Amino acid sequence: MSDFITVREVGLRDGLQLVPFHVDTDTKLAWLEAEADAGVSAFEVTSFVSRKAMPQFADAELVAARAAALPGISAAALALNGRGAERALEAGVGMLVFVISASQAHSKGNAGRSADQALAEFAEIMTQVRACAPERRPRVLAGVATAFGCTLEGAIDPARVRALMSAMAELGPDEMALADTVGYANPAQVKTLCREVKADIGHLSLGLHLHDTRGLALVNVVAGLEAGVTAFDAALGGLGGCPFAPGASGNVATEDLVYLLHTLGLRTGIHLPKLLKVRERLAEWLPGVELHGAVGRAGIPAHQVAEMEPY
Amino acid sequence: MSDFITVREVGLRDGLQLVPFHVDTDTKLAWLEAEADAGVSAFEVTSFVSRKAMPQFADAELVAARAAALPGISAAALALNGRGAERALEAGVGMLVFVISASQAHSKGNAGRSADQALAEFAEIMTQVRACAPERRPRVLAGVATAFGCTLEGAIDPARVRALMSAMAELGPDEMALADTVGYANPAQVKTLCREVKADIGHLSLGLHLHDTRGLALVNVVAGLEAGVTAFDAALGGLGGCPFAPGASGNVATEDLVYLLHTLGLRTGIHLPKLLKVRERLAEWLPGVELHGAVGRAGIPAHQVAEMEPY
Repeated sequence: MSDFITVREVGLRDGLQLVPFHVDTDTKLAWLEAEADAGVSAFEVTSFVSRKAMPQFADAELVAARAAALPGISAAALALNGRGAERALEAGVGMLVFVISASQAHSKGNAGRSADQALAEFAEIMTQVRACAPERRPRVLAGVATAFGCTLEGAIDPARVRALMSAMAELGPDEMALADTVGYANPAQVKTLCREVKADIGHLSLGLHLHDTRGLALVNVVAGLEAGVTAFDAALGGLGGCPFAPGASGNVATEDLVYLLHTLGLRTGIHLPKLLKVRERLAEWLPGVELHGAVGRAGIPAHQVAEMEPY
Repeated sequence: MSDFITVREVGLRDGLQLVPFHVDTDTKLAWLEAEADAGVSAFEVTSFVSRKAMPQFADAELVAARAAALPGISAAALALNGRGAERALEAGVGMLVFVISASQAHSKGNAGRSADQALAEFAEIMTQVRACAPERRPRVLAGVATAFGCTLEGAIDPARVRALMSAMAELGPDEMALADTVGYANPAQVKTLCREVKADIGHLSLGLHLHDTRGLALVNVVAGLEAGVTAFDAALGGLGGCPFAPGASGNVATEDLVYLLHTLGLRTGIHLPKLLKVRERLAEWLPGVELHGAVGRAGIPAHQVAEMEPY
């Protein structure tokens, strides 16, 4: 197993969903560039959803284009349906993220269609992706949301999650992920399901998208690592939450995730002291928005600063 | 390995250290009884320290005596020196907790003496304990504080912690524990040190006292479980902090610890929904004091309530 773990900053997408005011494009790009300068190399930068439903992402095309022009980073964008994926392809995104919710109720609320309809759409999207000229062909990250439970439906059958992941895997994405959209996952569940899905999807890398609603996000990260997960989504300052999943709260905080991974001797390429400086700027960019996470408040223990640098 | 884990509520001791007003004896006992009713069976109920230095514990004798009269619980009291231990023995505590700090600077600040002086005192205390009439002889829990680092000294040599634990173990305590007094511990460190100490101290059970300063408390719980730790201190609402350890913040929240343990299929004897009700009362008993922890804010997922009941 490689000791490099991909930390994917999703604050610009998941984190901005619940911020109650519009954040302008220049601020988004300043945030992106500051984190890239701290060594973060993977981002979800925007969401191609209805501009009317989520005006926060009305500038998706612009953000995607400007992010694609930055060297040395992977800039992904989320799409929840075929129309969104089309817009993302036209905008020339480097990575397209397509997510199907295992919960029927959440799927209807979040994407306006059933999981089966979404799967059919994903097949069409993959056809379009393969039709792209090689230099404009994005990588594809396919994932299942509400994979560990849903506030609307309660428990989610793991067999259903595995079937959806396997069906998506057959359509040829480059990477896959499971999302604990509402923060219901526990470590026993994460270890079991991730091991099973890893066995099902074979060579494809598996990531986790975790929310810290019940304090278990970092425990679930460790469970995921033990099951062979090599990529984790996180949001600076623990921002985030799904507007269509009642009771969902913030993503695991990027700074806490990096601190944990470094104490475990894993590499992320991220300079944690610099990342904490970006968190301070984030507090200025998002006035009045409560930031979460423990390391941002407590700081790095003085004797550990060296091991938290480029790693 | 047994699947029963001891959750020791230390809020009445560690949690009250930083509460900026006096909590009266009746309120302390009401808190104790309410948690006992929710199934918590192990408590640290007070601290026999100088009444002048910590007026919060001026009623230590009264709290210890009233707690000792409650059926079905283990009521422990902390002592940091021989004088405190004498008072605890006179008060007839059921369990005496004696802690030596591995950090010289913290030892001087917290207990007014070096670790070597404290070790000599502990030997005298054990002589006194053995001299007690059997029906008045308390169990003894011996521990090392700042075992994973110290805000004043930085890194702490694990060899020093092991030597202190072994020296205390030879003096015949009933149980032992390691304390991350300032929240510096990481899971790799916890797993290694706990395994080494377990090998050193043989048959004695090992507990952990963890603070959540950098968000790693629950991750460290899992690391401890994997190393054979069978008891964990916690404080309802994540209260706590050491007045002589700058930058220390709250203990791991009892409710979050119980939630984690139950999701792992471990038993604690605690009824989590009832415990969350006690947390609501705690907020009334301690007006203006900020409570921490995720499960208290987010609640138990509806489909998991049954598995969070007497377990």
